[in-house]
Amino acid sequence: MDGRIKRVRYKVRKRQGNVGDQPGLVIIPEGALKPHIAIFSYNKDELLTSEGKDIKVILDQFKKCDRRIKWSHWIKINGLGDAKLIDEIGTHLNINPLVLEDIANTHQRPKFDEYEDYAFCTSRMVHFNNDDELINNQFSAIIKDNLIISFEEDHEEYFEAVKTRLKAGKGAIRTAGPGYMCYALTDTIIDNYFMLLAQIGDKLDAIEDKVYSDADKSIMFNSQQIKRTLIIVRRASWPERDKINDMIRSESPLITSEVKIFLRDAYDHCIQAMDLIENYKEVTSSIIDLYLSMVSNRMNEIMKVLTIISVIFIPLTFIAGIYGMNFSRQDDHGHTLPDNMPELYWHHGYVYALIFMFLIAIIQVIVFWRKGWFNKL
Amino acid sequence: MDGRIKRVRYKVRKRQGNVGDQPGLVIIPEGALKPHIAIFSYNKDELLTSEGKDIKVILDQFKKCDRRIKWSHWIKINGLGDAKLIDEIGTHLNINPLVLEDIANTHQRPKFDEYEDYAFCTSRMVHFNNDDELINNQFSAIIKDNLIISFEEDHEEYFEAVKTRLKAGKGAIRTAGPGYMCYALTDTIIDNYFMLLAQIGDKLDAIEDKVYSDADKSIMFNSQQIKRTLIIVRRASWPERDKINDMIRSESPLITSEVKIFLRDAYDHCIQAMDLIENYKEVTSSIIDLYLSMVSNRMNEIMKVLTIISVIFIPLTFIAGIYGMNFSRQDDHGHTLPDNMPELYWHHGYVYALIFMFLIAIIQVIVFWRKGWFNKL
Amino acid sequence: MDGRIKRVRYKVRKRQGNVGDQPGLVIIPEGALKPHIAIFSYNKDELLTSEGKDIKVILDQFKKCDRRIKWSHWIKINGLGDAKLIDEIGTHLNINPLVLEDIANTHQRPKFDEYEDYAFCTSRMVHFNNDDELINNQFSAIIKDNLIISFEEDHEEYFEAVKTRLKAGKGAIRTAGPGYMCYALTDTIIDNYFMLLAQIGDKLDAIEDKVYSDADKSIMFNSQQIKRTLIIVRRASWPERDKINDMIRSESPLITSEVKIFLRDAYDHCIQAMDLIENYKEVTSSIIDLYLSMVSNRMNEIMKVLTIISVIFIPLTFIAGIYGMNFSRQDDHGHTLPDNMPELYWHHGYVYALIFMFLIAIIQVIVFWRKGWFNKL
Amino acid sequence: MDGRIKRVRYKVRKRQGNVGDQPGLVIIPEGALKPHIAIFSYNKDELLTSEGKDIKVILDQFKKCDRRIKWSHWIKINGLGDAKLIDEIGTHLNINPLVLEDIANTHQRPKFDEYEDYAFCTSRMVHFNNDDELINNQFSAIIKDNLIISFEEDHEEYFEAVKTRLKAGKGAIRTAGPGYMCYALTDTIIDNYFMLLAQIGDKLDAIEDKVYSDADKSIMFNSQQIKRTLIIVRRASWPERDKINDMIRSESPLITSEVKIFLRDAYDHCIQAMDLIENYKEVTSSIIDLYLSMVSNRMNEIMKVLTIISVIFIPLTFIAGIYGMNFSRQDDHGHTLPDNMPELYWHHGYVYALIFMFLIAIIQVIVFWRKGWFNKL
Amino acid sequence: MDGRIKRVRYKVRKRQGNVGDQPGLVIIPEGALKPHIAIFSYNKDELLTSEGKDIKVILDQFKKCDRRIKWSHWIKINGLGDAKLIDEIGTHLNINPLVLEDIANTHQRPKFDEYEDYAFCTSRMVHFNNDDELINNQFSAIIKDNLIISFEEDHEEYFEAVKTRLKAGKGAIRTAGPGYMCYALTDTIIDNYFMLLAQIGDKLDAIEDKVYSDADKSIMFNSQQIKRTLIIVRRASWPERDKINDMIRSESPLITSEVKIFLRDAYDHCIQAMDLIENYKEVTSSIIDLYLSMVSNRMNEIMKVLTIISVIFIPLTFIAGIYGMNFSRQDDHGHTLPDNMPELYWHHGYVYALIFMFLIAIIQVIVFWRKGWFNKL
Repeated sequence: MDGRIKRVRYKVRKRQGNVGDQPGLVIIPEGALKPHIAIFSYNKDELLTSEGKDIKVILDQFKKCDRRIKWSHWIKINGLGDAKLIDEIGTHLNINPLVLEDIANTHQRPKFDEYEDYAFCTSRMVHFNNDDELINNQFSAIIKDNLIISFEEDHEEYFEAVKTRLKAGKGAIRTAGPGYMCYALTDTIIDNYFMLLAQIGDKLDAIEDKVYSDADKSIMFNSQQIKRTLIIVRRASWPERDKINDMIRSESPLITSEVKIFLRDAYDHCIQAMDLIENYKEVTSSIIDLYLSMVSNRMNEIMKVLTIISVIFIPLTFIAGIYGMNFSRQDDHGHTLPDNMPELYWHHGYVYALIFMFLIAIIQVIVFWRKGWFNKL
Repeated sequence: MDGRIKRVRYKVRKRQGNVGDQPGLVIIPEGALKPHIAIFSYNKDELLTSEGKDIKVILDQFKKCDRRIKWSHWIKINGLGDAKLIDEIGTHLNINPLVLEDIANTHQRPKFDEYEDYAFCTSRMVHFNNDDELINNQFSAIIKDNLIISFEEDHEEYFEAVKTRLKAGKGAIRTAGPGYMCYALTDTIIDNYFMLLAQIGDKLDAIEDKVYSDADKSIMFNSQQIKRTLIIVRRASWPERDKINDMIRSESPLITSEVKIFLRDAYDHCIQAMDLIENYKEVTSSIIDLYLSMVSNRMNEIMKVLTIISVIFIPLTFIAGIYGMNFSRQDDHGHTLPDNMPELYWHHGYVYALIFMFLIAIIQVIVFWRKGWFNKL
Repeated sequence: MDGRIKRVRYKVRKRQGNVGDQPGLVIIPEGALKPHIAIFSYNKDELLTSEGKDIKVILDQFKKCDRRIKWSHWIKINGLGDAKLIDEIGTHLNINPLVLEDIANTHQRPKFDEYEDYAFCTSRMVHFNNDDELINNQFSAIIKDNLIISFEEDHEEYFEAVKTRLKAGKGAIRTAGPGYMCYALTDTIIDNYFMLLAQIGDKLDAIEDKVYSDADKSIMFNSQQIKRTLIIVRRASWPERDKINDMIRSESPLITSEVKIFLRDAYDHCIQAMDLIENYKEVTSSIIDLYLSMVSNRMNEIMKVLTIISVIFIPLTFIAGIYGMNFSRQDDHGHTLPDNMPELYWHHGYVYALIFMFLIAIIQVIVFWRKGWFNKL
Repeated sequence: MDGRIKRVRYKVRKRQGNVGDQPGLVIIPEGALKPHIAIFSYNKDELLTSEGKDIKVILDQFKKCDRRIKWSHWIKINGLGDAKLIDEIGTHLNINPLVLEDIANTHQRPKFDEYEDYAFCTSRMVHFNNDDELINNQFSAIIKDNLIISFEEDHEEYFEAVKTRLKAGKGAIRTAGPGYMCYALTDTIIDNYFMLLAQIGDKLDAIEDKVYSDADKSIMFNSQQIKRTLIIVRRASWPERDKINDMIRSESPLITSEVKIFLRDAYDHCIQAMDLIENYKEVTSSIIDLYLSMVSNRMNEIMKVLTIISVIFIPLTFIAGIYGMNFSRQDDHGHTLPDNMPELYWHHGYVYALIFMFLIAIIQVIVFWRKGWFNKL
Repeated sequence: MDGRIKRVRYKVRKRQGNVGDQPGLVIIPEGALKPHIAIFSYNKDELLTSEGKDIKVILDQFKKCDRRIKWSHWIKINGLGDAKLIDEIGTHLNINPLVLEDIANTHQRPKFDEYEDYAFCTSRMVHFNNDDELINNQFSAIIKDNLIISFEEDHEEYFEAVKTRLKAGKGAIRTAGPGYMCYALTDTIIDNYFMLLAQIGDKLDAIEDKVYSDADKSIMFNSQQIKRTLIIVRRASWPERDKINDMIRSESPLITSEVKIFLRDAYDHCIQAMDLIENYKEVTSSIIDLYLSMVSNRMNEIMKVLTIISVIFIPLTFIAGIYGMNFSRQDDHGHTLPDNMPELYWHHGYVYALIFMFLIAIIQVIVFWRKGWFNKL
């Protein structure tokens, strides 16, 4: 069992709630973590950061911000375990209940939906966690005016790099509005796909090396797990591409033309990732084919050698059997029966028999050799 | 045979009626259940419910409703076994005979057809019944003005949740018209797909666990049944998506823009279901591949071990055969033939022979070991 | 060989005529039957029927019809063995020679071509004949003004139901013009696809039952024949769908909007048939996979049992061989050689040997049991 | 090796010229034949024919033609071995060098390119030659005003039928301009696809018959060759369809509406050919599957029978081995050891032993029979 | 291991930089070569060439060029190991940082992006290097006004032919502007695909020859490598086609209509290459199928022959075993037991036994022969 990589679970948790429930209900997924809120308010020169557990921290921060300058806010919520929080945010910002339902229902495909004065987007944060398990969490964000609220399922520090860039304040990140922030987060997610694919590439490499050195049963298992991982990333990245495309073609003022240039870059990255996924899928199939062919060859080889050994000995054993027969040299009356196994009474009968057997073995070896049966297939 | 799941029947019942029949004839499917009618009349404040077996119950309810207030009606017909009822409804509401034919002919694909002042839609209610058999019933509905008539094939309580919401009267269900009711029913059907897929997911999980613990022939059978189930759900959900799309793009006043927002949500759910189906199909294939590879590996392993045991004994048996030969120590005249099997007359001949055999066995084991034939493939 | 269904011939007869022939030549297919003409002239109240072998019967009937009332005519020609007849019809109605060529060249795909004042359509009449052979005949029809001329390859009564409806005179059949008649014939052809598919469904069912009861080689053969049949129906029904779609979108006055409603119904049926075909194709593949897996399992089972029996006996036979050796108890001088096979001279040597053999057999059985080799794979 | 059909070469000759060569250079393919020119000048009443080896024959013919009547010319050039000729034609008619390059570079896909006052088209002339080798030559033609120049790679009489029709002068061939001539040549090429497909059909039939009678290794080889042939025809016919479609939609005056009717006919033929190709591809796969299944069944059958025979004899041989043991009836002191193989001293011991063996064999046969191991799989 | 071709590495180097980096950063790929700059300034009559290692050589050349004549410049940069150089070029020409990032990030798919007054395109330079390793380098170019700057990853002389044409000065190369130069470079890259495909064709040919002569394990390995190579070229050529199409449809003044005619030619070449790739993929699959079938046939053949030999000897050995039994001719009292193995005391018992064995062997051979088991499968 060792040598095996983690089994990839394909089972999607059941949709929360019951069949036929009223649409727009925020139903918290089972086992959801309590939310942790961080709010980053920034303009060209300043950056204010607060953290907390309920909506008060957001409202306090809003008050703190000087109204004469235009501030932008990034509200980062990690953990979806508080339906009340989501509902309150929805009420404050006047968000459609269906959007709130989608935030809590963590099986959304990547999409970009525009509403009157805000937009909503989702992505899949597919990556291996520290235990090498495949995580397929949902990222969602509400973009509004000067505000982006991002929702993640767990407390991991996934967007560290974006925070760093925000603190450094270089580039467009502090000035280009919530659309750019949305791009920055999306781009980080896509960058993580490449990280994931690089890890898959390493695993494929290890599997392939094993095929050539000491192939064992784990190869089939591992290749199938890789295949499933690739299917999951593909299911995440295909609609991601469409989503980015929707953003590029959007006429919403939230996505400025400056941001669209960057989105076009993210679009290219997304297609590169998809390309890589297709490539790895074909490589995985090729590894499985090679492995199956190798197993079958090796088995054939073993069976062939063993069978050849058997067949060489079978006629020899038969001859030994012949001369082990007890045909009597004398009948009941003591008369010699000269036709009964006279070879046994020859002077060198035994030696002749051994030589005869040896010849037969040699002839068989030669015949099989000539037929090419000793060649490796 | 145990361990097997229910065999999935793919056979579609023959189309009712005969080849070349006049179009528009309502032909009741063989074995159709007698209809059971429930009528729900509701407005913002009130809800009237009646039940019965013929069209009278509908007409009575219509009369009861106060004409000054606008009432909506949901007429729920379970069982298609009464051609007369369908014809009467058609006559009362002035419905095209082809629509009536489609209601009775229960092999429709999901579709949404608009007519002058009404619309007609069908869906497939695919689910496992209590005996774990796959049911693929037809749901159809006529939507008109302030009226929706839904037809189901059997008497099961499929839309319990919708009835409950109607009774509770919360949300848009009592006020948003028959288009919303049509959405609510369709959404319940799609929710049931997720239920079905969750059950399939559990079955797949059980099959996969079995592959790793005690694989037997049922795996192949069960995987093929799962595959067929997935094909059937896919055949139901693909046109369902197109149907919902048709409803979204419809310009009929029956589908208000308020309803379209909900339909877009249902559309997303439908795509999620399709995604899941494709995913499960790939997982099923992967399980079959793993199983076949495992069976072949196990068989190879057994055959290899057995053959190696044979081959080790074959030369030993041959040697025993040699020394079982009866070459005579004396010719007919009593002269000693010293060349005939002198080993038999050595002092320790037997011991030497045993040692020799033992050595040959050891050498074989070492050679096979060196060649790696004892390794698991 | 019994148990096999009819081998499906895929070979298309060579196109009639020679490479590079002038286009528009009517070349009669080899072995074509002599034509049999039936002409049905009808209006709301009357129906005149005549039969014959040449164009005279048509012209006579035309004359017979009272010019003050508008008559419609359905000329039904069974058998294409008379180039002259086709040419004469072409001349009378002023039909493009390429159309006449297509009538005689019986490899057309279903299509609908519009010309100035007439239209031409073809379909494939795929069905099993009484000998259970797959027939793939061509149906073609010229529609003009108040006239439809249909051409079939053989004399079978394929459109009996349409004739009956025409005689009964109910529905739109006598009043809705040649476009409706064309629809009625097309719909009959599609209805026959369902008949064919029901027969295929029965065959698939029989094959699958056989897989589980007494699988034999015929399963592979029969499944392949079913597959081919499905390919042939698919090749007929896909362009049929396009053809009906062309008719629906046609702006020709021959296809009235009343007929288009019926055609939309036929279109739905066609898609249902295609759905069913795809379904059956997947079921056929699934049956083949199950069968192959079952054959391989059964074979593995047999080989395993046989090999285990061999391996159990091999060491026993070896031991018997040991004690069959002739190591001498005395050397040539009569001295006892106590090391040579002393077991043979023990009091209970034979019994011990038998017990020893029995123990070895038991141990082997236990070891193999423990390894799970007696379990079914 | 006999029974095999010709191996189909897939290798495309290298593109002529070197990487990075200037575009528009006419580079003669290696081994190209010297051109042979035939010029046919015709109008409704007359037909002038000349043949030659250089451009002079064309110019002479032009002069000969009476200028008062409108003549059309078909210049038929067989063999591309003369770059100068192609260049001269290009100069005379003012043809784009890229077109001239395409004429000489014989790997063009079928296409139809329009230029200011001329058009250029190519096709693939795929057929079996007399040695049953697959030939995939290029046909190209320049169409201009009243002129068509066709280029073929070899000297074969491929368009005999067109010449005959031209001489006969019936139909539109002499009057409908160079567009019609282009259609006539294209149609002949497509007709040849049907000829080729008929030959492939015959070969497939022969292979399939062999599968059922005396399957041997050639089946796999031949099926693969057929598959490759089909791939090559498909690669020729798919773009051919697009090309004809381009011609139909062309607004060039060279393709008159009269010609377009014929082209639509050719388009239908092309689709029929493609249909047939797909059909044959599926049949080929089905034959390969049947063959593989049959080989595996036959092999299984043989191995099963052989193994059953072995297993029946193994216990018998063991018993014979038992009674071949030499346990002594007397110890060294001459005392009888009654426990040592008393059976050997029974009156009918030998007969009992034989009967015992026989019983064991019978029991085994019965057990195997019961298990159904003698049934054919 | 010999006979194997180079293992094709599929692993894409990780994207440079870190997850979430600021977009537009020029990050030099690890191991990038130091740039080598060549600048070609030309007009109809003159050609100036300089080489160097930094941007000074470009600026010097610009100064040298007489301003009264319009010069074009081709700046050819081999090696991307100098971020400063790329940044300086970007600053001088006012290029978007995302473009500069793409130049350094060498995993771009072929694309053509237009900006206000310049355009940017990339291609993949896929070829075998001298060690027969597959190289998949990036080519990128900035086209502006009278300037093209091309970037390559290594110092190889890939565009020798273009340089030669530039020196010769024939054709449009000196006069048709940077768009034409871009075409010339792109066309050279596509020409190299044909070179690569010709090499692959040779390898496939060698592999297929080996299948028929002395098939060994390398066939599977090599075919899989070829498959991967084809996947890589396909991934390069498909977007290349789209890119050329984008260039053709571009309205940028950089791509003149004169250049578009040449681009259409390049487009045709690209499709020919893609065609060839698909063809080779199918051939590779066909070779693998043939090989697997051959291996399995050969193995079956060997096992069959060996098993037949075993089975022929098994009954013979059994008979020898029978007559090797020691049933005593005399009981303990010296009485003759005439039923115990009387055959042993017949006059010609031994001869009869040998004849009997011989007959059994012959009968077996005849039976197996009759069953066709000696035929090759």
